[in-house]
Amino acid sequence: MGNSVKNLAILGATGSIGRQTLQVIRSLPGRFRIMGLTAGQNLDLLAKQIAEFQPKFIYYQSVNKHHKLTDTGCEFLSLEEIASQPEVDTVVIATSGKAGLLATLAAVRAGKNVAIANKEPLVMAGEIITREAKVSGARILPIDSEHSAVWQCLNGEPQPPARIILTASGGPFRGYSTQELNNVTASQALKHPSWQMGKKVTIDSATLMNKGLEIIEAHWLFNVPIDKISVIIHPQSIIHSMVEFADGSFKAQLSYPDMRLPIQYALTYPERVPNPELPKLEWSKIKTFTFEPPDFTTFPCLKLAIKAAKTGGTGPTVLCAADEVAVELFMKDAIKFTELACLVKQVLQEHKPIPNPTLEDIMQADNWAREYTLKLAGKKI
Amino acid sequence: MGNSVKNLAILGATGSIGRQTLQVIRSLPGRFRIMGLTAGQNLDLLAKQIAEFQPKFIYYQSVNKHHKLTDTGCEFLSLEEIASQPEVDTVVIATSGKAGLLATLAAVRAGKNVAIANKEPLVMAGEIITREAKVSGARILPIDSEHSAVWQCLNGEPQPPARIILTASGGPFRGYSTQELNNVTASQALKHPSWQMGKKVTIDSATLMNKGLEIIEAHWLFNVPIDKISVIIHPQSIIHSMVEFADGSFKAQLSYPDMRLPIQYALTYPERVPNPELPKLEWSKIKTFTFEPPDFTTFPCLKLAIKAAKTGGTGPTVLCAADEVAVELFMKDAIKFTELACLVKQVLQEHKPIPNPTLEDIMQADNWAREYTLKLAGKKI
Repeated sequence: MGNSVKNLAILGATGSIGRQTLQVIRSLPGRFRIMGLTAGQNLDLLAKQIAEFQPKFIYYQSVNKHHKLTDTGCEFLSLEEIASQPEVDTVVIATSGKAGLLATLAAVRAGKNVAIANKEPLVMAGEIITREAKVSGARILPIDSEHSAVWQCLNGEPQPPARIILTASGGPFRGYSTQELNNVTASQALKHPSWQMGKKVTIDSATLMNKGLEIIEAHWLFNVPIDKISVIIHPQSIIHSMVEFADGSFKAQLSYPDMRLPIQYALTYPERVPNPELPKLEWSKIKTFTFEPPDFTTFPCLKLAIKAAKTGGTGPTVLCAADEVAVELFMKDAIKFTELACLVKQVLQEHKPIPNPTLEDIMQADNWAREYTLKLAGKKI
Repeated sequence: MGNSVKNLAILGATGSIGRQTLQVIRSLPGRFRIMGLTAGQNLDLLAKQIAEFQPKFIYYQSVNKHHKLTDTGCEFLSLEEIASQPEVDTVVIATSGKAGLLATLAAVRAGKNVAIANKEPLVMAGEIITREAKVSGARILPIDSEHSAVWQCLNGEPQPPARIILTASGGPFRGYSTQELNNVTASQALKHPSWQMGKKVTIDSATLMNKGLEIIEAHWLFNVPIDKISVIIHPQSIIHSMVEFADGSFKAQLSYPDMRLPIQYALTYPERVPNPELPKLEWSKIKTFTFEPPDFTTFPCLKLAIKAAKTGGTGPTVLCAADEVAVELFMKDAIKFTELACLVKQVLQEHKPIPNPTLEDIMQADNWAREYTLKLAGKKI
């Protein structure tokens, strides 16, 4: 198992998950070959990664004269082309927001192992992605820590889960009142108490929208009805999620909050590989785990997501699109923290969801929601 | 899977585990047929169980004129004969102390599914039992809640565990000083804070000897070195044990402390079956899990067990035998609680363990240890 080298493409290699994926690959020499690397804007880092890992295929969004990436000998292809190259075994979707959608679909259609950290593609187009994966035989391997936990707990169980409980740290504003939330800044929201993550997902964690998106992601990944997926706040972030089985027995997965573990598990699955660089739980230092219900009133995004999930169709697409725009506006100080949920709510209210949407329906709903969110906010990005 | 009826023999049907096994069987009608029931002294209850479940084979230790068990039409056989009857698929070893050893061996040699709650057979003769199980193809299915938890966590994992952490409630005397322990009575020791169990195992839980025996049991069941098995006190008794894997990821199994769940899992494995009578974890009521290291100084039995386990050979047999006698003496108020560990320690010190013991070596060591314990205590049972 461990002896055959896996050929990887990493989409979003310069972001938080991309960088941590490359750390894992450095820690486990001889197991992986990097076939493709892609980046958005951070060409400085991409150039270094290309020099180190010598990929065959690259893609980058921005153009910068200072970087002669055209001289690297790498072939410049689109994200979708890289994701479906015959020489690639596993595609790591480490992009952020909507950016990974078409590449995820391309990888799924090409029957790849698709290690997915970027939750928006599944939220926006979960029905299409899971249907296409069944046709092509593609395997979707979750990297998100909660979904990795559920996946690990389901190992070897012959029956589907009776219930999934996603744990949440509660984010940096756990216990705040709505009034207190009115005045929080983007830089406060970006200080997550337990996880090192990208900006979009960190803001989503502060609003609890992230947990709502995870409910939808879990629904598609594990084929569990939305009302059988619940959320519990566990501020220590050591239990990464739990599964209840038909007999009432629960299993949980535990580790220190470090994305490299779920990344590594998706890459080495079903094998588990010692990695001295991963922090090990020290039980002598662990005294208490606490649990509390989420505060749906102060953090309305979680309820919005559950509602959109139950509505289905293009509802979750619109939720995602409005949230992505609203997060960007908040990070630019164009709206307040509490206005973020209001904006998403208004956009959802105005949308008539299309059931069983085609990819075109999804793209149109996405475009409409982005434009409408900006219009409502009276801003431009 | 669920459609074929399993034929069970329950050895120790009138004890705590036996009664709970029959509760599970009542809750899941149509799945099991009771082929054999055995009891020690409680013929009142055995007579009722025979009337209800109509077994083919029975055994009982004591004779009582008031019970015409000879008129039931059941065949009276020895424990070993019942355990190896061709019509029996699964043998539930619900006996206490040494009593189940020979029957466990008989069931293992006959290639049965052996659902084992009684830990002493594995502690005394783990090497022989596991070796014979490999030869016959018998499957040993743990019922002890900790070992069921480990077994559940290992489901579907292709590699052996890197480490096992057994949880312990800490028993009724958690936090007591040695001085306070001097004056505790058997009736205090029999009030376990979280589990309903038989008397022997409840006293063993109060001394932490039970956890020591579980370490040895886990060593044989899961083929994990003794120094890779540790103990953590978790007074809420909801996490029933944890497994660490090669990559540092942990899995835990959780439920309210109720033996019917691990009993049921051993009987329905690999299937999980809804049972409305089992209590379901209510996360809205769970606020805190706490963890603390065991107090090896105040509860010396745990260290004695670990030492005997590392010594190996007939060491664990002598540990078991001395403990069984000492527990009986304590329950009869013949020795103090704190004298129990002293007695076991002295007996172990006097014993020269025989490596790779035969069954005869084990029986001899067991006899010697029982006699020597009584001699040291200056008592008779």
